[in-house]
Amino acid sequence: MNVGGVSPTATAKLRLSPIGGSDVEIVGGFWARWQRINREKTIPHGFDRLRKSGALGNLRLAANGQGRYQAEIDTSGTTFPFLDSDVYKWLEAVGWELARGTDPGLIAAADEAIGVVAAAQRPDGYLNSFVQLVRDGIPYGDLAWGHEFYCVGHLIQAAIAWHRGLGDDRLLAVATRAVAHIDAEFGTEGRPGIDGHPGIEMALVELARVTGEERHLALAERMLGLRGHGLIGPGRFGAEYWQDHEPVREAATVAGHAVRQLYLDCGAVDVAVERGDEELLAAVRRRWSDLIRSRTYLTGGMGSRHRDEAFGDPYELPPDRAYTETCAAIASVMLAWRLLLATGEPEYADVIERAMYNGVLPGISLSGEEFFYTNPLQRRTHRAAEPAGHGRRAPWYPCACCPPNLMRLFSSWHHYLATGDESGVQIHQYADADVTVGDVRLAIRTDYPWQGRVTARVLQTPARPWTLSLRVPSWSGAADGPVVEHSGQWNVGDTVTLDLDPVIRVTRPDRRVDAIRGCVAIERGPLVYCLETVDAPAATQLEDLVWDGSRQLQEAPRPDIEPAMIGVAVPVVDRGSASPGADLTAGAIPYFAWANRQVEAMRVWIPA
Amino acid sequence: MNVGGVSPTATAKLRLSPIGGSDVEIVGGFWARWQRINREKTIPHGFDRLRKSGALGNLRLAANGQGRYQAEIDTSGTTFPFLDSDVYKWLEAVGWELARGTDPGLIAAADEAIGVVAAAQRPDGYLNSFVQLVRDGIPYGDLAWGHEFYCVGHLIQAAIAWHRGLGDDRLLAVATRAVAHIDAEFGTEGRPGIDGHPGIEMALVELARVTGEERHLALAERMLGLRGHGLIGPGRFGAEYWQDHEPVREAATVAGHAVRQLYLDCGAVDVAVERGDEELLAAVRRRWSDLIRSRTYLTGGMGSRHRDEAFGDPYELPPDRAYTETCAAIASVMLAWRLLLATGEPEYADVIERAMYNGVLPGISLSGEEFFYTNPLQRRTHRAAEPAGHGRRAPWYPCACCPPNLMRLFSSWHHYLATGDESGVQIHQYADADVTVGDVRLAIRTDYPWQGRVTARVLQTPARPWTLSLRVPSWSGAADGPVVEHSGQWNVGDTVTLDLDPVIRVTRPDRRVDAIRGCVAIERGPLVYCLETVDAPAATQLEDLVWDGSRQLQEAPRPDIEPAMIGVAVPVVDRGSASPGADLTAGAIPYFAWANRQVEAMRVWIPA
Repeated sequence: MNVGGVSPTATAKLRLSPIGGSDVEIVGGFWARWQRINREKTIPHGFDRLRKSGALGNLRLAANGQGRYQAEIDTSGTTFPFLDSDVYKWLEAVGWELARGTDPGLIAAADEAIGVVAAAQRPDGYLNSFVQLVRDGIPYGDLAWGHEFYCVGHLIQAAIAWHRGLGDDRLLAVATRAVAHIDAEFGTEGRPGIDGHPGIEMALVELARVTGEERHLALAERMLGLRGHGLIGPGRFGAEYWQDHEPVREAATVAGHAVRQLYLDCGAVDVAVERGDEELLAAVRRRWSDLIRSRTYLTGGMGSRHRDEAFGDPYELPPDRAYTETCAAIASVMLAWRLLLATGEPEYADVIERAMYNGVLPGISLSGEEFFYTNPLQRRTHRAAEPAGHGRRAPWYPCACCPPNLMRLFSSWHHYLATGDESGVQIHQYADADVTVGDVRLAIRTDYPWQGRVTARVLQTPARPWTLSLRVPSWSGAADGPVVEHSGQWNVGDTVTLDLDPVIRVTRPDRRVDAIRGCVAIERGPLVYCLETVDAPAATQLEDLVWDGSRQLQEAPRPDIEPAMIGVAVPVVDRGSASPGADLTAGAIPYFAWANRQVEAMRVWIPA
Repeated sequence: MNVGGVSPTATAKLRLSPIGGSDVEIVGGFWARWQRINREKTIPHGFDRLRKSGALGNLRLAANGQGRYQAEIDTSGTTFPFLDSDVYKWLEAVGWELARGTDPGLIAAADEAIGVVAAAQRPDGYLNSFVQLVRDGIPYGDLAWGHEFYCVGHLIQAAIAWHRGLGDDRLLAVATRAVAHIDAEFGTEGRPGIDGHPGIEMALVELARVTGEERHLALAERMLGLRGHGLIGPGRFGAEYWQDHEPVREAATVAGHAVRQLYLDCGAVDVAVERGDEELLAAVRRRWSDLIRSRTYLTGGMGSRHRDEAFGDPYELPPDRAYTETCAAIASVMLAWRLLLATGEPEYADVIERAMYNGVLPGISLSGEEFFYTNPLQRRTHRAAEPAGHGRRAPWYPCACCPPNLMRLFSSWHHYLATGDESGVQIHQYADADVTVGDVRLAIRTDYPWQGRVTARVLQTPARPWTLSLRVPSWSGAADGPVVEHSGQWNVGDTVTLDLDPVIRVTRPDRRVDAIRGCVAIERGPLVYCLETVDAPAATQLEDLVWDGSRQLQEAPRPDIEPAMIGVAVPVVDRGSASPGADLTAGAIPYFAWANRQVEAMRVWIPA
């Protein structure tokens, strides 16, 4: 059954169960558009870029055992060794996508890629084009920076998508043999070794779930246990960078490279629920609480530092120098989902909502073919004079981790909408969707995120009573608690309505966040808004505009950007003008939609 | 004559002339203490560290042509190739220091170091221990990162200190031969080549001034002309990093690595005044104006970014992530001094004052034996729990550019106090000092920076009338303009008094600096103040304190830190406390004195 990328075993200790991917379908509205764009534009664009970037070609050359490894050189002069993972993430996306509906073009492209991957694998199971082409085929010579386990992790996740979504095990055969090669050298009997970039741990747990092979879970557990004892060395940025400074079950706070920490904690939750290891789960939850309280941007973005792509200090959340990598937002969704399943606590779904609308979506253009790697909350006017590439979306990146990560998330996004437990059905995210949980079938209808009304109509029900739980987002005043529950005997045609009332909100920052003191942000429903130069009053600079709290904020439809989009008219004063003049108004749009028109200045936090 | 590190020729186009180092003596007060600490503690400590770090030993090994290059490995895993420059900067400091007064211990140490340097030089004149030991002696193989010209630049500056200060030309002989080796390969007839780290340009101009050899000036001019055309390549951080993106006489703003830009512009001013090149001078002044207006911290610190030690965007001046390298503040003093001589405009002396008290001094402990490489304006409470080295002073650094840079500046600081021109004498910086300019001799007396009274008594005067100019700092309301001038016929014993009135000031930030909106800073006279945890009310956290503007700021003597130090009692409210309780007061001390007691949290900008 297509149960998505996270499917704990029957004996796992968890509160909620994911439902089958074929049991959820997004049928319209906001997210249907994004899934369609992803399928029709982003994924084909990705295949084109996999060819041009060298990612596919490298694997093709590896099959022959020789050739020149191709990679765009970063401005850092670095040749990234992990381009295989771009192919794997793209294949994972296509796996989920074909499970949603067949497509000859996608099948042909995927068949080509799968063939290339399979051919590149050596007879001994080893598979990594960089090592095969650049490192004389000698494996595991640079665990700190080589990303060999990391790439196999993504290979596993692709294989699982094709297995669960399509019953196609071509990639699973490749992945299993690649894992066996690692296991032989680094397994329980082998030498200690962990990857500088975590990620394989969660994949190994999933591989154990798919194959029933206990040793994959044991290898994941072993890798988690080895980390945090200085095994990798300090490297360029200290042991914290790869979370090797404190044991995974002891570290009190997140540290180092944001994506690495979040992927690592995904694996820790996966192992914890399979093993019933409450101490390990508690460690992840403790880190998560601290992260959400003190190191998360309003947008759900995480990781403020450019130097080492790291979480900053608590409350070090500068809007202009925010790094907030798109992949970190995606990883936060992956981790929050695991914690939601493990605990049943709706706050995790709340974080997913914030991150999806405001941390993940800004990473891709409305057209679906351009991307942001970093997602700052402010861009200054003077940058408009700079050459392209500075703070503008790009069709691909030399380090292209984000674009295919977006693809696989959008392709599997319907998996995140609902769960089941013995009491009934939980709806966590709102979209026009038909949802089946066991013998319950529901039609969810909504114009979310633009409007706040959600209806759930019963299409099929068992005779016994059950409970429908609907999450109430933390921004809404629609209920006292984080869920409303409707319990009882149900009949087909019964309808529940939830009105979440997405009024415009003026958000003031936590006083401990120094970088945005004296500012306000505009929010409406689940969306964070921003000002862009193109929507500012004529002849003003964005840096000169101050919110005028004496006048009302107004909703302003923005069909010029998207048919249903609601913008906000923000009263402002121009402090750059010698004569204050008439009342001015600037247009705010959802932050996720910025940088899709003329790109000049932008800001989320507005001086008050 | 000992005219300091910058001594333009008679034909140079400039407004003010430096005076002889032997014609100025700081006889007491604030700066006498720092010169004494530097001489008695810092410089001997430096010699000890040159031995331990490998800097001296590498040169010793180079004399034999073999051995293992020794360097502390940075957390980046980098072996720095420029340790020779630490020796040269230390030797420069000792040169100026011995010119102030002899000392057998310093002489012995310097003789040892000079002997080692001279012995390390190859018969062909080439000298660089890293290349000689690590790169098979093949010169100039990595101009981008190798720092070979840069090291020779510091060698020249040391040689000039010994020549001008002591008439000792041992180092000048070494330096001249090292330059000849460069000139043969990269001179007018040679191939184009510039160093990734500027610095040699200003040294070459000074060498031309000392030797009268035009070709050194021509080489400096050639290097300036070659820069800005992409010759070095983008490297890790783009061509801006080493100012190779735009020609030196065209670039409108500073860019890239702060110290590199400032050293480069020092050389540009030196060439400009010797050549009478007004266009080149104008380019530097244009960059400087932009730098001071939009990219300089309240402390005079420059360069906000950690990633590439770079100037940030305009008004990107975060207090917590301020990089503000000590060397950048020193370089700003060097550049402002050159611009002051070239233009005579007192605003440059004003910047020197701010940078010395608030940008340079924080880089060294009150004891003179510990240093800061970066100088943030905020440190958060949670860091107190971290291991030593995080935000605390260190006795040395793997990249030890800052400590010996401080030493040479303190040893030559008296050179910066006064200048002369045809009209008379200009006093730019206030210290207890006896100053001779031509046939005028003055005794300047003051308790600056703690008190604002300055007296200048005439000890010797010619019969003809002359003008005494005294700078009025921009913070003072003592006069309408930036200088007060006293002109006329003088008699011995005549005394001029200037009362600068250093009242406590509450400084509000430029509204365009987003990171400190809603905060105030405390200043008094030339000093910026800060709060530290150790001076906060009991049981409060620094992050919770807000300035209470309804109560008065008060002066508070701080003899516990330094005999004459004036602190400020700052009324605050504790927002972290549930019950507001009684009026609270926090103690502010000059920012330069922070991190000399228990190190926990610190902040310059206080929420208002």
